[in-house]
Amino acid sequence: MKLKLAFIGYGVVAQGLTEILLEKKEMLKQNYDFEYSIVAISDIMKGSIYDENGLDMDKILDLVQKGKKIDEYPKGIKGMDSIQTIKKTNADVIVEVTFTDVKTGQPALEHIHTAFDVGKHVVSTNKGPVVKEVRNLLSKAGDNKVYYGFEGVVLAGTPVINLTKYTLAGNKITSFKGIMNGTTNYILTRMEEGMSYEDALKKAQDLGYAEADPTGDVEGLDALGKVVILTNVVLGKKIGWEDVKRTGITKISPEDIAQAKKEKKRWKLIGSAEISQDGRVNAKVEPMKLPLTDPLAGVNEAMNALTFQTDELGPVTIVGPGAGKRETGFSLLIDLLEIHRKMYGESLD
Amino acid sequence: MKLKLAFIGYGVVAQGLTEILLEKKEMLKQNYDFEYSIVAISDIMKGSIYDENGLDMDKILDLVQKGKKIDEYPKGIKGMDSIQTIKKTNADVIVEVTFTDVKTGQPALEHIHTAFDVGKHVVSTNKGPVVKEVRNLLSKAGDNKVYYGFEGVVLAGTPVINLTKYTLAGNKITSFKGIMNGTTNYILTRMEEGMSYEDALKKAQDLGYAEADPTGDVEGLDALGKVVILTNVVLGKKIGWEDVKRTGITKISPEDIAQAKKEKKRWKLIGSAEISQDGRVNAKVEPMKLPLTDPLAGVNEAMNALTFQTDELGPVTIVGPGAGKRETGFSLLIDLLEIHRKMYGESLD
Repeated sequence: MKLKLAFIGYGVVAQGLTEILLEKKEMLKQNYDFEYSIVAISDIMKGSIYDENGLDMDKILDLVQKGKKIDEYPKGIKGMDSIQTIKKTNADVIVEVTFTDVKTGQPALEHIHTAFDVGKHVVSTNKGPVVKEVRNLLSKAGDNKVYYGFEGVVLAGTPVINLTKYTLAGNKITSFKGIMNGTTNYILTRMEEGMSYEDALKKAQDLGYAEADPTGDVEGLDALGKVVILTNVVLGKKIGWEDVKRTGITKISPEDIAQAKKEKKRWKLIGSAEISQDGRVNAKVEPMKLPLTDPLAGVNEAMNALTFQTDELGPVTIVGPGAGKRETGFSLLIDLLEIHRKMYGESLD
Repeated sequence: MKLKLAFIGYGVVAQGLTEILLEKKEMLKQNYDFEYSIVAISDIMKGSIYDENGLDMDKILDLVQKGKKIDEYPKGIKGMDSIQTIKKTNADVIVEVTFTDVKTGQPALEHIHTAFDVGKHVVSTNKGPVVKEVRNLLSKAGDNKVYYGFEGVVLAGTPVINLTKYTLAGNKITSFKGIMNGTTNYILTRMEEGMSYEDALKKAQDLGYAEADPTGDVEGLDALGKVVILTNVVLGKKIGWEDVKRTGITKISPEDIAQAKKEKKRWKLIGSAEISQDGRVNAKVEPMKLPLTDPLAGVNEAMNALTFQTDELGPVTIVGPGAGKRETGFSLLIDLLEIHRKMYGESLD
């Protein structure tokens, strides 16, 4: 049985997933009985296309890479907007990867609700909807017997949601802390080597890690969104943006770095949340001096990491990339494999 | 639907799992629809008991903790040996946790084969059978449509087998390296602080980390077994004990430690394997000086860690405990939850 996919939005993450699906077609079939066809794409800039029998994705990638419109694809139905594509195509799974306002969660939020209304699964790397109303969305997905996968919203393809849901299942997780923003970790790594904040930021911008306006990263807003998501999903506590205390890295001076070194410590921008004895949540993003013996202290460059405090195993830490075209595209594959397992079961052969 | 379990062997790991199952009964039912009953126990020293309707495990734990025989349990059928318990009881899953010779894999190997022959799933923390013939056992389990779970044989309850099988699914893993022995990592951590090898070993023995004869740990034999297991299971390459080069930590001197410090490095006993271009496996256990920027360099005390080199995400590292009664008992629960998912599927509610 093939999973039929429709892409809503067709930017770099969607293209990254497409490349993986094309290159690994045989491997996915052989190792996981996973087969797919991509039946539709709707992108506000690149146009839209639908063929119920599946699109030739090599052709589509070729058009996109040449800067052409998807409409130039030789067959199929053209001109369907995102809502029509979600409602009217024969796709089982909506891959929601639009350019979305992280504050309002739109237009992704409407796409996800629409998909659930018509009984379709959603996999998405959009943070907005998860930050805004993940518990509502998960509950609606459950009511409609569909799956909502968003592994990519925390550390791209480094599996943290699935880690806590499956491989750490049976544990009670009472807190987490982590390095959830690669840009700031890159800057702090350079500062540790003696570079000034300004030079390190410039270098991060040159490498494409930081944007022209770096506020979202360096003031801890990106990490804050991830703290909100993990608190809701992993700790099971409902919190919003406003419930997280936040301090960025812009005030860290070369003297602070030197002082930490003397103390055998290292500055990291840490996002964390813990449930206190009375059931309240203490959630924050702030620079912390970690002792070099903390597994997070050894996580440098643009690498990310998360430590979960579990009742059976104590602290368990996962370290991996937190961004990248392929890495984020790959996070969608993790969710697709999970939908495939749920729909068709797992064989014991 | 309840999973019916039979314990073959009833030492500390079995008791650890029992405690978890008793304490988390409600949570497992609520979160994972997981229900169980323990119908039989057969232990060569403590005796055996079988009740097809399930045993009162609080009573059993009480007997064991008072040093009494399981035979003193007031009801049920007594005197069945391990093979009879596997063959003749109504258990769906055999929890194989006997005291087993790690070289021959016996008696666990016979228990596992017998269980597969009669169509029963096996979860086990016994390294011997996995090192000896994991590929044969997995293939036999597949032919008999049963599951063979052995998450606990590498890093106790820190999920590494399940991590590579599910949460990293879709990646090609071409190499791994890790700290797979807590005793030697504890000794190296103390030596780094200035203690001699002899004093550090003594302290590890006092704390119960190292045995009276520490050879298995300090000469790298324990880590070697884990390298063999991971190479077979995760890299998919058939190797045995004899294919792994091995050096222990006994020759590391205070001067070596000091020299590494100067180079901003740290000694770790690293087990690793990689597949070379021509498809051969290079597997070894040896002390390595890791730069402090390596995530493994920050893993200290008795903590364990493994880095998998993946094609989509680059290196992904997991850090967690590698031993302990509860931690190892918990590894069996990870496998039981997986069997439960495979037998009854996962709901989308």
